[in-house]
Amino acid sequence: MSSEEPSRNPPPEEEKREKSKKELAKLERQRQRKRQEAAAAAVSSVTIEADPLAANYGDIPLNDMQSKEISGKKWTEVKDLVAGLKDQEVLIRGIAQAIRAMSKKTAFVVLRKYGFTVQCVLTVAQDLVSPQMVKFATRLSINSVIDVEGIVSVPAQPITGTTQQVEIQVRKLYCVNRAIPPLPFNIEDAARSEVEIEKALEAGVQLVRVNQDTRLNYRVLDLCTPANQGIFRIKRKVKNIFRQFLLSERFEEIETPKLIAGSSEGGSAVFSVDYKGKPSCLAQSPQLHKQMSLCCELARVFEFGPVFRAEDSFTHRHLCEFTGLDVEMEILEHYSEVMDVVDRLFVAIFDGLNETCSKELEVINRQYPFQKLKYLRKTLRLTFEEGVQMLKEAGVEIDPLGDLNTESERKLGQLVLEKYDTEFFILHRYPLGVRPFYTMPCADNPNYSNSFDAFIRGEEIISGAQRIHVHGFLIERAQACGIDVETEAISTYIDSFRYKPPSLHGGFGVGLERVVMLFCALDNIRKTSLFPRDPRRIAP
Amino acid sequence: MSSEEPSRNPPPEEEKREKSKKELAKLERQRQRKRQEAAAAAVSSVTIEADPLAANYGDIPLNDMQSKEISGKKWTEVKDLVAGLKDQEVLIRGIAQAIRAMSKKTAFVVLRKYGFTVQCVLTVAQDLVSPQMVKFATRLSINSVIDVEGIVSVPAQPITGTTQQVEIQVRKLYCVNRAIPPLPFNIEDAARSEVEIEKALEAGVQLVRVNQDTRLNYRVLDLCTPANQGIFRIKRKVKNIFRQFLLSERFEEIETPKLIAGSSEGGSAVFSVDYKGKPSCLAQSPQLHKQMSLCCELARVFEFGPVFRAEDSFTHRHLCEFTGLDVEMEILEHYSEVMDVVDRLFVAIFDGLNETCSKELEVINRQYPFQKLKYLRKTLRLTFEEGVQMLKEAGVEIDPLGDLNTESERKLGQLVLEKYDTEFFILHRYPLGVRPFYTMPCADNPNYSNSFDAFIRGEEIISGAQRIHVHGFLIERAQACGIDVETEAISTYIDSFRYKPPSLHGGFGVGLERVVMLFCALDNIRKTSLFPRDPRRIAP
Repeated sequence: MSSEEPSRNPPPEEEKREKSKKELAKLERQRQRKRQEAAAAAVSSVTIEADPLAANYGDIPLNDMQSKEISGKKWTEVKDLVAGLKDQEVLIRGIAQAIRAMSKKTAFVVLRKYGFTVQCVLTVAQDLVSPQMVKFATRLSINSVIDVEGIVSVPAQPITGTTQQVEIQVRKLYCVNRAIPPLPFNIEDAARSEVEIEKALEAGVQLVRVNQDTRLNYRVLDLCTPANQGIFRIKRKVKNIFRQFLLSERFEEIETPKLIAGSSEGGSAVFSVDYKGKPSCLAQSPQLHKQMSLCCELARVFEFGPVFRAEDSFTHRHLCEFTGLDVEMEILEHYSEVMDVVDRLFVAIFDGLNETCSKELEVINRQYPFQKLKYLRKTLRLTFEEGVQMLKEAGVEIDPLGDLNTESERKLGQLVLEKYDTEFFILHRYPLGVRPFYTMPCADNPNYSNSFDAFIRGEEIISGAQRIHVHGFLIERAQACGIDVETEAISTYIDSFRYKPPSLHGGFGVGLERVVMLFCALDNIRKTSLFPRDPRRIAP
Repeated sequence: MSSEEPSRNPPPEEEKREKSKKELAKLERQRQRKRQEAAAAAVSSVTIEADPLAANYGDIPLNDMQSKEISGKKWTEVKDLVAGLKDQEVLIRGIAQAIRAMSKKTAFVVLRKYGFTVQCVLTVAQDLVSPQMVKFATRLSINSVIDVEGIVSVPAQPITGTTQQVEIQVRKLYCVNRAIPPLPFNIEDAARSEVEIEKALEAGVQLVRVNQDTRLNYRVLDLCTPANQGIFRIKRKVKNIFRQFLLSERFEEIETPKLIAGSSEGGSAVFSVDYKGKPSCLAQSPQLHKQMSLCCELARVFEFGPVFRAEDSFTHRHLCEFTGLDVEMEILEHYSEVMDVVDRLFVAIFDGLNETCSKELEVINRQYPFQKLKYLRKTLRLTFEEGVQMLKEAGVEIDPLGDLNTESERKLGQLVLEKYDTEFFILHRYPLGVRPFYTMPCADNPNYSNSFDAFIRGEEIISGAQRIHVHGFLIERAQACGIDVETEAISTYIDSFRYKPPSLHGGFGVGLERVVMLFCALDNIRKTSLFPRDPRRIAP
């Protein structure tokens, strides 16, 4: 049996750059109409009625999908369709990635499942495949879920357009769930790199560019692109390595409440919640409760959980809700014990990604090109003062007791890269005035604190510190920072330090999405959240 | 060197049952005074001034604990203090569990760290330990964090009151962090079983009983009891087995937003949040987004995360915030595929706990006695109709198309235990009318649904079902259930099923705290949440 090029959606005739939602929908309707017309033309001479093979295709009635029975049929996964199955009958389920009417008698349906694709061939044949069945297939819409029964065949030529090197000669074809046009955009369009679009433009072809907002409005579709599939595999990997590393170093996982009686950090914007008539808010971090856990005979704890920030930040790197990876641990003498954990942990994460995710990184790279992260075996540590000095020498003057802004952070990242050949480093001994009230001041200079941030490619991803463990001093510092120590959240926290005082301790918090964004040098943090939340977006 | 009985707090002279917070605090102040007086009496003849050994004890100045230096000193963990270290000098840090002045010249301090305890002995000796040092030690308060340097000795007699079978002959003793009396209650009092209290009462001794509210008000202290330490180890274990099992069956972890544009379930009370002027609420479950994740080419997903219920339920088994373990998966034909996962998963959890947590279970059992859970290798499945019939035969009439209430659930659990000898079972084919709108009705009877609950000891811990995967039918059912399909949360969810339809699928949600509570037959779910949230409690 012959094998032709696997089908692709014909490129739309009229396309514009940065199309709006409405324009895209309109375009899709037009495309859809043309596709249907083409399909109809291909089978126009065929009568629909009275097909003796009618039972071999069609939409599966809803009732048949309500767990009617367990058929005992053997299903095969697309990824398992290999030449060894030649001439065998298989039953598969997949998503219609492409549908193409080749003639009145032949059509192709490319089915995709979990990133694997196979070409299914419908050829009219006596007692096997009717013209009506081919017509039915060509009229299905892209993205529909399809069941196919057929015979595995192995074409003489290699198949370039699908992952699987076999074809399925279709005997039965049923639609499980129809995608209903108009589709907001094609996955194919959403999967293109800027480079590809620019190149095509140079050749006089204007390809569709799906903008960020349209992607997020129809996030479920956007998430199907190979790059996005890769990004979330990377994210899962980071989380897994993080957890495995901490468990191996005797950290224990906790869950702390997200509904708290008042702001934990003071200052930053919080989301207010009406808690049964009591004022309350969403935790901006598990800070208070993870420290309180250390009062309860746990030596080292960690938590993965949502953190909420009601900041009005319309930047590429802020979200209103993201996944916090939080760590808190007893130390014996020095906050460098905490930085040691950060060091080992992140080298483990970077190594792990490079070693086990090369395929994912390559796929992401194809759509969003980036350079591999540079990092040292032993993470560079600079003091804040050293950082200020480096900036000064480069002509950037900043307040030595103030915080770094986004711009100076980026500049410092650049200077560090030039001098130390690393894009990951720790900056410690921050000015006390720019850190939260529970931060331990330095022993030798009360203007500085035993705190640190860590940076990837010039952007902050970690904030950590030694915490104040002494009850009286904690109150003193809270008051000095203008924290209301009488609120229920703060008073119960501070009181714990009175009746069950903790040992010396410190910890840090990491934004999971930022780690993924910066490791892959993505331009927007929204790309790393399944369903991102920003000041303007709370759906889907 | 001689070894005496390890010290214990002397039993208080006046004690009442179910003491209030105030009474307990008062009692503690009295006790504290008595202890101080006793300690003072023991060393009354000693002059405090001019101790040439003054550098060997005292409170560590704050400045010395601000990461001043890395001393390079070798620290030993309490758990590692064994006879093999005899005559060696060690440096340890621990919590003062008990302090006892034996005479003017001798005192004992029991230090605890991570559940391990060791007795430290102070004996006045020329050029080594001064009477002032003994006095300093006896005046320390219970729960303080202490550093001890001393020589390991091995007493001739076994030590019954500590885990470690060595003593430390103290040379230096410093206080890292002082607990400040009055303490809300003693850990020892909080660790007692009801049986113990009753027995003592029969013998004429009225011991302190710390009530649930006092425990939760000072949760950090309450969490230090051995039973509570065990409960949270069990909880971590459940979570770990859950995750390991799902990862081994190719499920992938996701994070879905907790801030959503509207109620996901309809009906149940939600916490409202002002989202930048937009009405929004906290997700009662990841239902909508975990289903939407299946639209994005993920076949099997799970999530661990907080779920929020603003129900006014003042019961032993409801929390306003708890940890949801949520699963969603494609199925080929039948929702029994989902029940199969539940079956294997929970047998793995129960087996895992029994095999690896016998010590923890024993400790919990000591304070809260319970019978080992009875479960079958292959989990029993009954239909709702069969359950109703069993209840009917036992004289309990319930609406065959209504829901089970707490009482009938418990009764059914009892009947199932008697008949099938299991305390874990699945009840499926619930009436459609009592399930959420996205539940798939049964193929053979529209009054029932492809849904199930699972029960441990007669209480529900899991709710699951096949979900509707077809766009049009989903709208139909939502409208029939009175769901407003125009809200942003629901409309974006339903719309996903149009442009990127999912395959057949189902899933379930589990309350982590309930699993722990019911496996250990605890009487209150608050015992299984680090910092529980109920309608009256949002702190600590």
